[in-house]
Amino acid sequence: MDRSDHRPAAMLPGSAVFPHRHLTGISGLQPHEIAFLLDEAEQWIDANRSRAKSDRRLDGVTQINAFFENSTRTLLSFEIAGKRLGADVVNMSVGQSSVKKGETLIDTAVTLNAMRADVIVIRHASSGAVQLIADKVDCPVLNAGDGSHEHPTQALLDALTIRRRLGGIAGRRVVICGDILHSRVARSNILALTALAAEVRVVAPSTLMPAAIERMGVEPFTDFDAALEGAEAVMMLRLQNERMSGAFIPSTREYHRRYGLTPERLARAHPKAIVMHPGPMNRGVEIASSVADLAGRSVINEQVEMGVAVRMACLDVLTRRARGVEGWA
Amino acid sequence: MDRSDHRPAAMLPGSAVFPHRHLTGISGLQPHEIAFLLDEAEQWIDANRSRAKSDRRLDGVTQINAFFENSTRTLLSFEIAGKRLGADVVNMSVGQSSVKKGETLIDTAVTLNAMRADVIVIRHASSGAVQLIADKVDCPVLNAGDGSHEHPTQALLDALTIRRRLGGIAGRRVVICGDILHSRVARSNILALTALAAEVRVVAPSTLMPAAIERMGVEPFTDFDAALEGAEAVMMLRLQNERMSGAFIPSTREYHRRYGLTPERLARAHPKAIVMHPGPMNRGVEIASSVADLAGRSVINEQVEMGVAVRMACLDVLTRRARGVEGWA
Amino acid sequence: MDRSDHRPAAMLPGSAVFPHRHLTGISGLQPHEIAFLLDEAEQWIDANRSRAKSDRRLDGVTQINAFFENSTRTLLSFEIAGKRLGADVVNMSVGQSSVKKGETLIDTAVTLNAMRADVIVIRHASSGAVQLIADKVDCPVLNAGDGSHEHPTQALLDALTIRRRLGGIAGRRVVICGDILHSRVARSNILALTALAAEVRVVAPSTLMPAAIERMGVEPFTDFDAALEGAEAVMMLRLQNERMSGAFIPSTREYHRRYGLTPERLARAHPKAIVMHPGPMNRGVEIASSVADLAGRSVINEQVEMGVAVRMACLDVLTRRARGVEGWA
Repeated sequence: MDRSDHRPAAMLPGSAVFPHRHLTGISGLQPHEIAFLLDEAEQWIDANRSRAKSDRRLDGVTQINAFFENSTRTLLSFEIAGKRLGADVVNMSVGQSSVKKGETLIDTAVTLNAMRADVIVIRHASSGAVQLIADKVDCPVLNAGDGSHEHPTQALLDALTIRRRLGGIAGRRVVICGDILHSRVARSNILALTALAAEVRVVAPSTLMPAAIERMGVEPFTDFDAALEGAEAVMMLRLQNERMSGAFIPSTREYHRRYGLTPERLARAHPKAIVMHPGPMNRGVEIASSVADLAGRSVINEQVEMGVAVRMACLDVLTRRARGVEGWA
Repeated sequence: MDRSDHRPAAMLPGSAVFPHRHLTGISGLQPHEIAFLLDEAEQWIDANRSRAKSDRRLDGVTQINAFFENSTRTLLSFEIAGKRLGADVVNMSVGQSSVKKGETLIDTAVTLNAMRADVIVIRHASSGAVQLIADKVDCPVLNAGDGSHEHPTQALLDALTIRRRLGGIAGRRVVICGDILHSRVARSNILALTALAAEVRVVAPSTLMPAAIERMGVEPFTDFDAALEGAEAVMMLRLQNERMSGAFIPSTREYHRRYGLTPERLARAHPKAIVMHPGPMNRGVEIASSVADLAGRSVINEQVEMGVAVRMACLDVLTRRARGVEGWA
Repeated sequence: MDRSDHRPAAMLPGSAVFPHRHLTGISGLQPHEIAFLLDEAEQWIDANRSRAKSDRRLDGVTQINAFFENSTRTLLSFEIAGKRLGADVVNMSVGQSSVKKGETLIDTAVTLNAMRADVIVIRHASSGAVQLIADKVDCPVLNAGDGSHEHPTQALLDALTIRRRLGGIAGRRVVICGDILHSRVARSNILALTALAAEVRVVAPSTLMPAAIERMGVEPFTDFDAALEGAEAVMMLRLQNERMSGAFIPSTREYHRRYGLTPERLARAHPKAIVMHPGPMNRGVEIASSVADLAGRSVINEQVEMGVAVRMACLDVLTRRARGVEGWA
């Protein structure tokens, strides 16, 4: 179901250029803008699979990955994406951060700006921190996850995976199961998938379901089995360690019994339904090992692969104006 | 007041080449050598502001940033500087260091040397550690701050900021206020600014003022208000956390009252006096927030910007001999 | 005794290409394959000593250094090696690792693979972890040390140092002294040196000597003095901190007295015997400072230098097939 019909930007209907300076979230993006980023990402999939990964379009671009919260895969993914495009990539991790010396977030932001960064990728534990920084700097800012707010490149890579595997997104039934209340992955996915006209169902224990979630255009379920009927994509969320004990769920065993994706439960979905997870997985908690490894159905590794392609596209697109790319300057 | 008349090295009076192998401190540099480094830095300011930051003159050069003490901005600045010049930059941070395994500093140094580093940038908590390393390696060593000894690139970036903002340094009254006793920033700045014939006043509580500081050619004050009269540049030092409680100062509130730069106090300086701080700032302690953000007067972000340019110049100049640059080999 | 007669791969007797996909250990390598890697490394020694270190043959190659155990020199060495060949090098250190989030090692491995790494360098505290990862990924894997199993590039750099210093390896008497039981360095060296027909003696207190070590083709000694007779190379192992107190040895002082390499003891070896240590050294424990610094005899820094050359060779050779190098595709 791979799509190889990559269309160049200029031919996109209704959008000669991507009009946003930053990518702080999926919120605010038009459906055709989301589709444009997915289209742009397509070209990098084959490139990354070849032995000639190198593209130098970001030569001379300084990309700062400012990660105020620990991350492995997202940081690696952004770092690899930038380096494959030829950018000078520098990482600022929380351990080294002046934040520990009592500096305000805005002072850190203007400092990075004064070093003439060309694009800043930010992960932060606080919702809204990325927007705060974006407002203070002259260069594009990419949100790599802020608190329980948004994680837009995760939603884009998930949408790209679904589009390639199912041949499209509109009208597809996607079930998202887990801690909907606190998950920035869920939030960004809901925004992206509903914008692209998927039929989105969200499943969570009532303690982890936001009030009035219907207003986001999704259908809430507390019964996972019921929600799975006819699902073509099942997206499991990571159960955060900090929620595993305490008030939100009684126990991980109980959670697995009611909200874990087991082979029996998966059988309730569409016979070809794909299984997704943003990683890292808690095998045996939110997902059974056999499901995570189910050949032809589990697309978890493909999500990781799409992640690099999507981030390359975002880094490229957001810096076009400053790089003076024809038609974008 | 920006200077765009960058003069090439060969035209500098009295100095065809920079004769020092290392940059361990401002001490030992002649005034025209300091001016030469500032002149060299000028060219990178515009380059960094443009979208074509890339210069490949350090292609094939291995730059090791060996930071035995935590730092964000200085490490980032050196890393960005090296990468913009095309160097292969590798960071060795204290967390990973063999020092933790009981290795001596000299053994670490000769190990870095044996890997055929072309330039080593060092930050270390002990005064003199950088010189110790410089004596043991075959390549140029750049001091990125050692104990309470020196921080020469900070002094260079401060001098460059002053020179650009005030149109010159000689005869300008510069007030440096804070922990003069322990500050490597103060020490390197005093050396650089007096060498360039500025009129330097230093301000500190008597517990934080070195004995016989007059011998360095500066005028000491314990009364900040008195010192500010006619000042064209006011440089506030960061109050280190470890001094904030204990014997040196009674309290941060008391410190702020007597040595914090407030709008009222700034009014005692020259009406166009610039405000400087090496960062990260303790807002409300050594500097009032409104002063730190004072448009047209606060040049704190410009200092950060000059830092990258100065470090590019130092990395370039110190490696010229080894790179066989004409006239330097 | 430097060899400059680097022979190109195609001319190597009996081996047109290196047939192994991974380098998980010395075990399994044929003597001529080990010699081939050493020959390949020779070319990088002079290149690294020159000012034009840059070689772009790994342009577009993504090298991930996945270090699940702290390391300074090995990580630096691999990072410098990759960058000098033009690779895009990204480090994943344990501090940032998803492993901390409970992810399985295999899930981490397939994630790195999905990012389309071209070569993965792994250090891990568990013996066999590297092989586990190698079995799960599509790209070459290089073992940078796994538990008490193997550290093949260390053995290669040691063999290269011996070959260059002694003019050959076959028939040379090499003494390895220290914690033979737990040392991956000892193990890989025994495999490499016996394969290359050296006469290897191993020395350890009986508590740190593996049972039936004779089966590896070496002669065990508990008396260091006796072992040293006629030795042309004396390789001291680092005494790991965790063994320094407790059941294995009575005290570091006692250890030094019986197993430390002192000038008096070195006098028992061949008059030109070279002294080796993988670093970082515990001066005064396994090796006396005066011996570590003995001019003309101590080759400890040369080992570090050979390390970069050997790693460049391994990175180059293992990626040739994927890069489509003529005769390797």
